[in-house]
Amino acid sequence: MKVSVIGATGYTGFELVKLLLRHPRLEIAALTSESYAGKKISEVYPALSGLCDAVLKDNDMEERASEADAFFLCLPHKAAMEAVKTLYGKGRVVIDLSADFRMSDRALYEKTYSTRHTAPELLKEAVYGQPELFGGELKGARLAAVPGCYPTSVIVPVYPILKEGLADKSFIIADSKSGVSGAGRKPTLGNSFCETYGDFKPYGIFGHRHNAEIDHILSRAAGEVGAVFTPHLLPLNRGILSTVYLKSQAPLSEIEACWEKYYGGRRLVRIKKGGETPSIKNVAGTSFIDMAAFRRGGDLIVVSAIDNLLKGASGQALQCLNLMAGFNETEGLI
Amino acid sequence: MKVSVIGATGYTGFELVKLLLRHPRLEIAALTSESYAGKKISEVYPALSGLCDAVLKDNDMEERASEADAFFLCLPHKAAMEAVKTLYGKGRVVIDLSADFRMSDRALYEKTYSTRHTAPELLKEAVYGQPELFGGELKGARLAAVPGCYPTSVIVPVYPILKEGLADKSFIIADSKSGVSGAGRKPTLGNSFCETYGDFKPYGIFGHRHNAEIDHILSRAAGEVGAVFTPHLLPLNRGILSTVYLKSQAPLSEIEACWEKYYGGRRLVRIKKGGETPSIKNVAGTSFIDMAAFRRGGDLIVVSAIDNLLKGASGQALQCLNLMAGFNETEGLI
Amino acid sequence: MKVSVIGATGYTGFELVKLLLRHPRLEIAALTSESYAGKKISEVYPALSGLCDAVLKDNDMEERASEADAFFLCLPHKAAMEAVKTLYGKGRVVIDLSADFRMSDRALYEKTYSTRHTAPELLKEAVYGQPELFGGELKGARLAAVPGCYPTSVIVPVYPILKEGLADKSFIIADSKSGVSGAGRKPTLGNSFCETYGDFKPYGIFGHRHNAEIDHILSRAAGEVGAVFTPHLLPLNRGILSTVYLKSQAPLSEIEACWEKYYGGRRLVRIKKGGETPSIKNVAGTSFIDMAAFRRGGDLIVVSAIDNLLKGASGQALQCLNLMAGFNETEGLI
Amino acid sequence: MKVSVIGATGYTGFELVKLLLRHPRLEIAALTSESYAGKKISEVYPALSGLCDAVLKDNDMEERASEADAFFLCLPHKAAMEAVKTLYGKGRVVIDLSADFRMSDRALYEKTYSTRHTAPELLKEAVYGQPELFGGELKGARLAAVPGCYPTSVIVPVYPILKEGLADKSFIIADSKSGVSGAGRKPTLGNSFCETYGDFKPYGIFGHRHNAEIDHILSRAAGEVGAVFTPHLLPLNRGILSTVYLKSQAPLSEIEACWEKYYGGRRLVRIKKGGETPSIKNVAGTSFIDMAAFRRGGDLIVVSAIDNLLKGASGQALQCLNLMAGFNETEGLI
Repeated sequence: MKVSVIGATGYTGFELVKLLLRHPRLEIAALTSESYAGKKISEVYPALSGLCDAVLKDNDMEERASEADAFFLCLPHKAAMEAVKTLYGKGRVVIDLSADFRMSDRALYEKTYSTRHTAPELLKEAVYGQPELFGGELKGARLAAVPGCYPTSVIVPVYPILKEGLADKSFIIADSKSGVSGAGRKPTLGNSFCETYGDFKPYGIFGHRHNAEIDHILSRAAGEVGAVFTPHLLPLNRGILSTVYLKSQAPLSEIEACWEKYYGGRRLVRIKKGGETPSIKNVAGTSFIDMAAFRRGGDLIVVSAIDNLLKGASGQALQCLNLMAGFNETEGLI
Repeated sequence: MKVSVIGATGYTGFELVKLLLRHPRLEIAALTSESYAGKKISEVYPALSGLCDAVLKDNDMEERASEADAFFLCLPHKAAMEAVKTLYGKGRVVIDLSADFRMSDRALYEKTYSTRHTAPELLKEAVYGQPELFGGELKGARLAAVPGCYPTSVIVPVYPILKEGLADKSFIIADSKSGVSGAGRKPTLGNSFCETYGDFKPYGIFGHRHNAEIDHILSRAAGEVGAVFTPHLLPLNRGILSTVYLKSQAPLSEIEACWEKYYGGRRLVRIKKGGETPSIKNVAGTSFIDMAAFRRGGDLIVVSAIDNLLKGASGQALQCLNLMAGFNETEGLI
Repeated sequence: MKVSVIGATGYTGFELVKLLLRHPRLEIAALTSESYAGKKISEVYPALSGLCDAVLKDNDMEERASEADAFFLCLPHKAAMEAVKTLYGKGRVVIDLSADFRMSDRALYEKTYSTRHTAPELLKEAVYGQPELFGGELKGARLAAVPGCYPTSVIVPVYPILKEGLADKSFIIADSKSGVSGAGRKPTLGNSFCETYGDFKPYGIFGHRHNAEIDHILSRAAGEVGAVFTPHLLPLNRGILSTVYLKSQAPLSEIEACWEKYYGGRRLVRIKKGGETPSIKNVAGTSFIDMAAFRRGGDLIVVSAIDNLLKGASGQALQCLNLMAGFNETEGLI
Repeated sequence: MKVSVIGATGYTGFELVKLLLRHPRLEIAALTSESYAGKKISEVYPALSGLCDAVLKDNDMEERASEADAFFLCLPHKAAMEAVKTLYGKGRVVIDLSADFRMSDRALYEKTYSTRHTAPELLKEAVYGQPELFGGELKGARLAAVPGCYPTSVIVPVYPILKEGLADKSFIIADSKSGVSGAGRKPTLGNSFCETYGDFKPYGIFGHRHNAEIDHILSRAAGEVGAVFTPHLLPLNRGILSTVYLKSQAPLSEIEACWEKYYGGRRLVRIKKGGETPSIKNVAGTSFIDMAAFRRGGDLIVVSAIDNLLKGASGQALQCLNLMAGFNETEGLI
């Protein structure tokens, strides 16, 4: 099966290329870049030299469409919409890593991203690409909207708990911490080394777009949910750890049993018990999500850890394609 | 005024020495160390060479007592108790950085630290050394129990809000993140570079001793309080940032006015407004505490940042002595 | 082919386990540990849970010998010697990551490591396991002495240049910088986070044991060589970059041609040209060695970069086994 | 004495402001910024809030000239030239942190910086502001050219050795490593967190402008010198460590005696003996330069460490003003 990566020179594109090089059933057809077209990807990422020296092509979707069966879109939101329209229209399989098709509710998307959605008709075609929860819908689908990094870290542990009514849906506080690569590769004062090194701080308090995504998806589990979500910037390059505070009367064993029911046998979800704590170090460079629950009285704390670029983006994207193509979901990921 | 630092070779001792070298009204009488007695402190901390080459003395409190008017104790809890008894008994001024005298309730201390308190009679003499809140009691006192680093970051912003009844006392969630120096200088696998670098994780969930200290002090503001406190380990050397979640109907302006009422004119407390966010970078190496409040509906988020070794320990300890000695509280700190 | 890792819980052992899990022709027979025997390796390294949950066995070599065809020894020098004797004596294939068999000259070893060599008869059996230079000797050999991390970074680029007489052998200055993992996993003040973070310094000036190894091997290229080697400690976890200063009249093209002659077609050696500079980032997590040469007048600068735990240890060790077993040398490494 | 900082919002400007706030004999007249004029400096650097909330003025030198007696110029080279002309012409004292007046040889400057020098007549007025070596010339001077960060780390230890003929002037290799702040505050891909974190590499091999400055100044000690200088980028924010390789027959004691002769009694130079090694950690945040010498046969290694923003820039600049104004050279620096 031939796949192309559109926007291959950002951090998620780079991760996808490394994953694809290892995948036994996928072959890279084309890698594209707006800014580096004509250069080798190994000139942009010398780490790839000798492994992948493909010359980057431009983003002419008409041309690109003819070259591959499936496409990973690593484009900014808005730009992704247009590319999806073209590729999906030509019958291709599309895995979109942007936010453009994550919300089935057009108005919510337009409000959250303050922009018009130009392909609303495709919203109902898109499957929210969190494979452990919505994998069933992925089989046979042609358009996957890969979840945001923060939402992945919150939704995977919390969705089943709400769905099973094991916690108070009116009380969800997600305190999340992410590495700097989440801000992308474009240099800004905010992601420059000297401004970030030795620092730690919250940002976008009560205003981060991923809050809307978290609420939108969790509402599918328990109806109208409004979580408090606070992102923080960690002085490390990759990884997200979320500490989620819930109110619950259920014993820990019941929470863990609930997770087993939803995730038993899903290798990329690792449930930690007996007080073991998820840690970014243990998932960095992998597509695992580690999670654990802790309880005292009515207070339930759920901790999850992922690599924001893998389980939070490229790894989960490939996991989606594996399911859409009928492969083993962990193919090329473990 | 002559002061000695007992246990000068740990990180808090090192910070105290640097502060004392700059203080216009204090003179270092003696620096002590159990493990390095006989060596120069500048051999242990070459950064001090040319600034302070004093030879470290041992911890014989009888001898030490005769050398200075005031003493900073940077000893582990339990060891501190004994030293305090001797020094206080000889009429000295004692600033204890350990946990031994932070709780006026003996039983609570003994339960929390699973050890017998051998100087219970001094508990009522000890003043909880958070100068902005309890500075009045410090004037004339001879024994100050310097607050823990995490409690400082939580109590300073939250105490006034509870005291004024501006938030629901039954709902306090403090998600705190600290640099590695909080674990002390003794090498362990947990604070070794390769285990900590690029990592981030919570620890001691529902079991950290500082939770008891936070509850104990906040209860003085609002009666019986039980906060949820979760510490995390940041991959940086110094600084604590706490994100505290409260429920409140009070407008932001009222929260900020409340802080102004308690802290107006106190230079080491910096209240951030208009969406400005506290950040570890802005307080590292200083004795400031920066704090800000954010509100959406009934959810109130309070963020604070301190240097765990300064406002969270040595800086606050010196601030205590300044007040006990009748100096300006910021002397040698700004 | 069944392989065991003796001393699997150190950082090099951990890297070997991850490599072996990906190797198509090797099966893990046993993992051992002195200190953690009886525990699962995934309890020591939670990153492995779900990937390898083998229970660690002890270091009883008599028993271990019967379980596998080949053995990776990740033991301290001296301890390795004894294990090698047993395993080699029983006809097993042994890849020793310690220094015990790197020097064919017993006296030099004993002087450098101030200890008696208790298996001198095996020194002549041992092949210095730098596959690109001595791969020919590895085929059919049963004992490989994997080079030290620093020596690998210096010898690979410099050996051919000296061998071809393209630089003055009396003038070799290697300024090397290594990440903290080179110091091993045992916690010490020197590798604790707060002592290392934000710091950089040389150590063991004129006294590092790897200097003797570098001289010993380079002497095979040009007879009696005495290099100046200075190691430095970098505030990062993995990687070594060496900047080597030589005197040469040869044009750059000739240096690069010499490298092509020795390393052309060897995938793990990447020769950078046109001013491209090796960088730790580009080799971290891989078994590549990147190298480049720069010239001004008679001054030749050679820069190399490796991952100290992979090309500098476990990756190169597996590369040795691949050749000893007749596999493709990059099997499981790319 | 009233001083202004021109270009106060770069990292060197920020450091100067912090130093000036502590200086007993200097008062800040104005702080300027091209890009932030009209804002408070504490909006650009919140760390300063409550310490310095001055509103930034523009760079109109005619106006600025009338406000202060002395000026620190933290401008890019070329821009500095023009400002110096105006301020010096009006009889002000000028401390220029740029490269514009470091080289007394106009042609060399123009070649090195590929630009015309528009104030050549002032080159002979300018004193190279390395106070320990050229402090005598600073007394009474009105224009100081503060040395580059790398040159400071190399020249201070090496100049006396060459001057006294204790090492071979034809053989100087300086392998230098600097923190990221040396690259300035302007965001670029090269100084972004994710590109720098966990990385280490050399840059500008055989082409860095500081090589010309080093040669130019060292030539004053020993006539025509051509050093090999290689800068590297460290994954930390501040500090430079230089490892300099020389050939010498002089015993170590003679090297150390030579340093004592030049630097005895100069508090900011700390000579390490008995194998103690300079380390960035020990000088970060200070204006010290630590240095030590090591010898084996004819090989002499000199190691120095400074904070690139202080002894390598702002601290040394203030040290210059202290001498030009007749103050104690360490005033406000210790």
